[in-house]
Amino acid sequence: MKIFRKLRLQELLYNKKDKRLATAIKLMVGRKPLNLSLFKLAVKHSSAAEETKHGIKVSNERLEYLGDAVLGTIVAEHLFIKFPYRDEGFLTETRSRIVNRESLNQVGKKIGLEKIVESDLTEKGFFTHKSIYGDTLEALVGAVYLDRGYYFCRKFVLSRIISPHFDLDNIINTTINFKSKIIEWSQKENREVDFLLKSITGSQRFKEFTVELKIDQEFFTEGKGPTKKKAEQEAAKNACEKLKLAI
Amino acid sequence: MKIFRKLRLQELLYNKKDKRLATAIKLMVGRKPLNLSLFKLAVKHSSAAEETKHGIKVSNERLEYLGDAVLGTIVAEHLFIKFPYRDEGFLTETRSRIVNRESLNQVGKKIGLEKIVESDLTEKGFFTHKSIYGDTLEALVGAVYLDRGYYFCRKFVLSRIISPHFDLDNIINTTINFKSKIIEWSQKENREVDFLLKSITGSQRFKEFTVELKIDQEFFTEGKGPTKKKAEQEAAKNACEKLKLAI
Repeated sequence: MKIFRKLRLQELLYNKKDKRLATAIKLMVGRKPLNLSLFKLAVKHSSAAEETKHGIKVSNERLEYLGDAVLGTIVAEHLFIKFPYRDEGFLTETRSRIVNRESLNQVGKKIGLEKIVESDLTEKGFFTHKSIYGDTLEALVGAVYLDRGYYFCRKFVLSRIISPHFDLDNIINTTINFKSKIIEWSQKENREVDFLLKSITGSQRFKEFTVELKIDQEFFTEGKGPTKKKAEQEAAKNACEKLKLAI
Repeated sequence: MKIFRKLRLQELLYNKKDKRLATAIKLMVGRKPLNLSLFKLAVKHSSAAEETKHGIKVSNERLEYLGDAVLGTIVAEHLFIKFPYRDEGFLTETRSRIVNRESLNQVGKKIGLEKIVESDLTEKGFFTHKSIYGDTLEALVGAVYLDRGYYFCRKFVLSRIISPHFDLDNIINTTINFKSKIIEWSQKENREVDFLLKSITGSQRFKEFTVELKIDQEFFTEGKGPTKKKAEQEAAKNACEKLKLAI
């Protein structure tokens, strides 16, 4: 099988569509696929899933699960090495600003996944599957990992996803004000947002504030933090995530 | 530096404590540390953190952040390959049953981390830092990854953490009833737990139920799901996590 792959004999069996995908992957990833079926799967959105004779739906969701983990590790290590003097709170926060649905979706579009994703979505479907390119990007990372191994995949992620599409300095220096984000949203949508201080627990030195965020008088999210302001930010952040607001 | 490491010259500089740690790591990981300082850091709990002259506290928390990601990827791939016909929901759920605070903590104790962790905790401190061995286990995975690379680390995790300490069949076949867990807890603690159906949204075909879990009449967690029962389970699961109940 290895020799078969080395001689690229499988390419003789490619049909026109396969050739097109193999070329697209080479442009995106930097190397031709060794196992094209992985990439065929990676670009298959669940709306275009085929059902096997055993009733199993085959789509890119399993690869997305794998790629999400691999991507998380690669970015975790990258930040770990880049910021030797920052604590794990900073690293976690910075990572989640890179690896989140909205930003991955934008990168997925930029690297051209729109052109190769197989989906079967109506216009309404695209609205409910907002993150189709971000999901496909994760699946692509999973496919690259299985096709060429961890270290090649790391090189691909860092040189073709992170470094050209994320400005780390910018990401770090932007403190997102989630509270103003959610208030802005409420005004646009004509909804009423309230922050309620629910409890203060802990000792004199280490207080923990719990704030509840209500939308139209109904509980929506909560947040905790060492100050009231931070708890409000946390509650607002959770609300932004729940509402899938672009940040 | 590589030759220095290959000849193990650094071992000549080990003091008694270093030698003891290097031997312990060899027993746990299977190979002697190449860079002992990584492992010295991995066993340093934040309660025993030293402050550098620049005011930076040095403990295993950064390595824990890295190891958590690496461990997640290794387990994700292991399940991905082991269960080729299961969907990503099953894979995610099974992974979180393996990689969770409580079970990692137990494994950490079993492999003997108790004997090498450096901490400075009073009895009360141990109660608030319940997951000290699980955290250290993650930091150890991070250290092994940096010391010997991804593939060695994967072998270490699969052969020395997952395979001897987790019975996959058992994990999969146990459906945890979170609702009965939380009710059991409430009876023991003499607290009142209520489940309240808050809303049913979505279309006729895809309904979403939202259930609120109250403890002593106060909002505690919520859960969503396609049936009322599943939403209750989800709310109960969140409550178990929030209360850090052993599952």
